[in-house]
Amino acid sequence: MVDLDVVEGNVRRMQYLARSSGKALRPHAKTHKSLLLARLQLEAGAVGVCAQKVSEAEVFVKGGVRDVLVSNEVLGSNKARRVAELNSLGSRVGVAVDSVRGVEVLENAASDLSVEVPVLLDVDVGMHRCGVSPGNASSVLAAISKARHLKLEGLMGYDGHSGSLSAESREWEVRRGWRTLEEVSRQAGSVGLRVEVISVGGTPTAHLWAGTEATELQPGTYVYNDAHQVELGVAREEEVSAFVVAQVVSSSGGRAVLDVGTKGVSVDQGYPLVVSHPGATVASMSEEHTVLTAQLRLEERVVLVPRHVCPTVDLWDEFVAFRGGRAVGKVRVDARGKKW
Amino acid sequence: MVDLDVVEGNVRRMQYLARSSGKALRPHAKTHKSLLLARLQLEAGAVGVCAQKVSEAEVFVKGGVRDVLVSNEVLGSNKARRVAELNSLGSRVGVAVDSVRGVEVLENAASDLSVEVPVLLDVDVGMHRCGVSPGNASSVLAAISKARHLKLEGLMGYDGHSGSLSAESREWEVRRGWRTLEEVSRQAGSVGLRVEVISVGGTPTAHLWAGTEATELQPGTYVYNDAHQVELGVAREEEVSAFVVAQVVSSSGGRAVLDVGTKGVSVDQGYPLVVSHPGATVASMSEEHTVLTAQLRLEERVVLVPRHVCPTVDLWDEFVAFRGGRAVGKVRVDARGKKW
Repeated sequence: MVDLDVVEGNVRRMQYLARSSGKALRPHAKTHKSLLLARLQLEAGAVGVCAQKVSEAEVFVKGGVRDVLVSNEVLGSNKARRVAELNSLGSRVGVAVDSVRGVEVLENAASDLSVEVPVLLDVDVGMHRCGVSPGNASSVLAAISKARHLKLEGLMGYDGHSGSLSAESREWEVRRGWRTLEEVSRQAGSVGLRVEVISVGGTPTAHLWAGTEATELQPGTYVYNDAHQVELGVAREEEVSAFVVAQVVSSSGGRAVLDVGTKGVSVDQGYPLVVSHPGATVASMSEEHTVLTAQLRLEERVVLVPRHVCPTVDLWDEFVAFRGGRAVGKVRVDARGKKW
Repeated sequence: MVDLDVVEGNVRRMQYLARSSGKALRPHAKTHKSLLLARLQLEAGAVGVCAQKVSEAEVFVKGGVRDVLVSNEVLGSNKARRVAELNSLGSRVGVAVDSVRGVEVLENAASDLSVEVPVLLDVDVGMHRCGVSPGNASSVLAAISKARHLKLEGLMGYDGHSGSLSAESREWEVRRGWRTLEEVSRQAGSVGLRVEVISVGGTPTAHLWAGTEATELQPGTYVYNDAHQVELGVAREEEVSAFVVAQVVSSSGGRAVLDVGTKGVSVDQGYPLVVSHPGATVASMSEEHTVLTAQLRLEERVVLVPRHVCPTVDLWDEFVAFRGGRAVGKVRVDARGKKW
């Protein structure tokens, strides 16, 4: 269940943050995977969207989005060819790279189709997942400068690790991440590459990156928010727009069992919040059931706020959209389940 | 990726266990959600399948399965009506009940369509999720005996809690669960209800229930198996038939990053095993990435065995089927994402 009124408020606020700090906003579409939501974001002023998979980018390009950044490494000649094909269709589909091999694979695919593929050098700003460090950036920069069908647009730095940090530590990490980006930017300049774009940040740190000289923000979760963002102090409870509504199907001895479990609410960051019944907490979850410590009536509706909304959305083919407190239709999760 | 040779061995072995112990086998289809796999099981001798949702049952009935047990409570007039409709189509679709309200809702729906709906009284055999205890069974049994359009076929007892117990404790729990079922069976007899079916067990305890006087086994996971079943000692590694194959997309400093994360492998029971690279372990997982503690080549293929295969299967629209070590086609996960 998605409250579109709240979605629109979230979209407006994030666009305002970006505009008022002179940044472009490129929302991450992996959160909603929905053409309708992407269009709301683009109409509000977003320059394009991020996708995390080539298959997601394909959904958005085919749905009319003309500027997509695959904010992830693309390896394998098949995936690289699909990126080149998307660029040959007239959309701009950029890709993150962090290895010489990644550059080679993209260059081969772009060369085969005689297209230019925009790339961002992915910089490890502290998450230690993908991305180059200043110490190993030079070989990748050299490969990019030699690749005739790739164009370095700039740098990308995603700080997913900040989601587990205190507000103070997040501020400190962003400052440190910015210095890393500056250092790699200097290295690019020294081999004659111009860094026009520095694309950074997720929902927990977008407001902090707004204070740096990065050029582009790529938060995703803000459109829906979740229990984790509320706990981080990044979103208020009334800014949560996505809920899972379940029904009590069994009840006895102070416990109530709901007809939705981990196949309907992702628990990768923990159990959901029970917002409809403030006294109730989740005792356990299995595939198809959630057990609450509460005595509730059979058939009663219970509203859950997922702790991590992005993978939860990916479990659903569609959602019921609400406006003004009333259901107004079903909306497809267009890129649901896209994997590669 | 599913190895159909291994699947067929698993199907044969479980069918043999059931047959040799005089039980009917009703495999739980929530594991595979696939008509192809259900047909393999039925051809091997299964009497029908279990589904966990009405929407899953609809997929199997429409796919030609004529005997389905919704091994879960069905509340809400909409869901109950759909169960009655499925029965009016000529298939037998039974339902678990554990409350007087559940009996009323089903009776109303069955009465509206003038059909008979088979029900099993769900008995709590120790899991403390759904199901009646001997102390609160009598009111539900009385309601069933009055309901003119419901037919009590027997009892159901699912022991999902056993999956976290040692082999010895599981044995003990099954004996205790059997005594509970006997007690409720006596109560049913005393109000003139005949218990013909006692349907029990999951993959970790099917071999233990085979030694009781239960009439029907309903394991699901055995068809694929997973890291959890291997750890329990219930399946051998060579009996695992479902894998997620990922690719290294980033690599540096002793870590390798794969292009699949929690949107492709469920982590509700923990991280997957890396079977292709015995030295490698999972350091962390996020939505779209898995970080391994291993230095691997970019583009290298890595084979993961999920710790919990059922919700992992539900993340995929289809799988690549192998026979004799060769890919032979793609198979749809027909009931993927079915929620209510």
